[in-house]
Amino acid sequence: MDFFAWMETMQRRTESYLDRLLPSANIAPQRLHQAMRYATLGGGKRVRPLLCYAGGELASADLSRLDNPAAAVELIHAYSLVHDDLPCMDDDVLRRGKPTCHVEFGEATALLTGDALQSLAFQLLAEYPLEADATRQLDMLRLLAQASGSRGMAGGQAIDLDAVGQPLSLTELEFMHIHKTGALIRAAVLLGAQCGKPLSAPELAGLDHYAKTAGLLFQVVDDILDSEADTATLGKTAGKDAAQHKPTYVSLLGLAQAKEKAAELRATANAALAPFGEAAQRLGELTDFIVDRHF
Amino acid sequence: MDFFAWMETMQRRTESYLDRLLPSANIAPQRLHQAMRYATLGGGKRVRPLLCYAGGELASADLSRLDNPAAAVELIHAYSLVHDDLPCMDDDVLRRGKPTCHVEFGEATALLTGDALQSLAFQLLAEYPLEADATRQLDMLRLLAQASGSRGMAGGQAIDLDAVGQPLSLTELEFMHIHKTGALIRAAVLLGAQCGKPLSAPELAGLDHYAKTAGLLFQVVDDILDSEADTATLGKTAGKDAAQHKPTYVSLLGLAQAKEKAAELRATANAALAPFGEAAQRLGELTDFIVDRHF
Repeated sequence: MDFFAWMETMQRRTESYLDRLLPSANIAPQRLHQAMRYATLGGGKRVRPLLCYAGGELASADLSRLDNPAAAVELIHAYSLVHDDLPCMDDDVLRRGKPTCHVEFGEATALLTGDALQSLAFQLLAEYPLEADATRQLDMLRLLAQASGSRGMAGGQAIDLDAVGQPLSLTELEFMHIHKTGALIRAAVLLGAQCGKPLSAPELAGLDHYAKTAGLLFQVVDDILDSEADTATLGKTAGKDAAQHKPTYVSLLGLAQAKEKAAELRATANAALAPFGEAAQRLGELTDFIVDRHF
Repeated sequence: MDFFAWMETMQRRTESYLDRLLPSANIAPQRLHQAMRYATLGGGKRVRPLLCYAGGELASADLSRLDNPAAAVELIHAYSLVHDDLPCMDDDVLRRGKPTCHVEFGEATALLTGDALQSLAFQLLAEYPLEADATRQLDMLRLLAQASGSRGMAGGQAIDLDAVGQPLSLTELEFMHIHKTGALIRAAVLLGAQCGKPLSAPELAGLDHYAKTAGLLFQVVDDILDSEADTATLGKTAGKDAAQHKPTYVSLLGLAQAKEKAAELRATANAALAPFGEAAQRLGELTDFIVDRHF
């Protein structure tokens, strides 16, 4: 299967799996369930599930074992977007080409929607045997919780918050992104791999290096897209980083150097995958796709 | 040890365990960690940890095994209070005798504080072997996630939200509370019991019946206290249910009948504990305490 066919298949698989696992909008509390479905379904590039499936392929994991972790990382991502868009955070009105959750359902429901999506992610990872060995599944739960919490994604958002209007060094910016987006990207790859055959310590270290690099790469590209693309193409408000005086790779390095940085990170990511040979094909293709994407 | 000595010991144990497990305010992101500690430490009746320890005692669980689930339910409770107090929800300024988290740290940090406390609860339950049998620990994680999510606590808050200014029947009010506070109370008791010797199916059903009843009982008493006590005694804004035209047991039944309802629930709870004999002593004492408390 060529990459784009694979990607589309996995995106559709993710969508239909999420559709099945999210409580029906007919079940009480209806409005909350409706909002959870609104915030999760019918959009999104599903980059994290794709990374999870590709990480699983690297470790020869059964496809059916990957559905739960892939959906779990996407639920964490979806919850973070709902909360990030709230008026007290980024105050954004457009997401994935639709009104944001709080615009559609009100702030209180959006708050609870994010909260419930987070719980659901952990429920899913604990839900039924992903692993013959339950201790390995506990490892996965711990990994996702760490990646989501104050030393991971939520922590990165806190650093981001404190950074608005502040001059940040490149090191500080990187520290923020390693937490804000990097931690969950890394978790997506590693959770996928943990569903397959056990990797050796050097293999795991190599994959971890790839996953961390990919996380940063994704953010650099995001900053470049935000400065270059228009709102209609992005499906979310473009240029908002500059409007909010948020430090970005583009504002710190300039556009040309930010693109160079992306190219370097791509090379590093590919080098980290090289020892895996053909098993890492999808991850490599995905890395290239992340850099070259225009949406 | 008499009940009050036991309670104080366990409250202190909870406080010191939470203090140890919450990231230090010196670790980045400092402000977020400071807020997480602010929202969790130095107050609170620790009813859920107490129920967890008492549930564990019923099943002869090792005390050291109970610290993680006891802390996890308290973290979920603390997160829910932080989010519940936000301006888009109850818009409350006083909690546990202190300014609420968003008053002290701002709304955005309070939002992230709740988010990160939730992640930490699941991290904790996955963190190190609570159980010789890891599948039992997965069961515990699933139970806590279900109790927290859209079919549990967050769902109950959504129902509560939709109910403001609405005439609710007693059945609807009960449905709301079974989710909003009952689910986590139930989880606290069952998580404790799951750390001990396995219970038979009838025993588990009996304990579950106790736990559900205790959850409702706690809410009825809360409504009574809210209508009777003053703000200084409660340590949170008193009379706010009436001010917000929220349906309560008192507004639906009147004070006298609400108190009768509480007495009935207490009798039911005690009856459910009877078959356990002395093993259920602490749970029984705790039930009595919940009904008779004046704070």
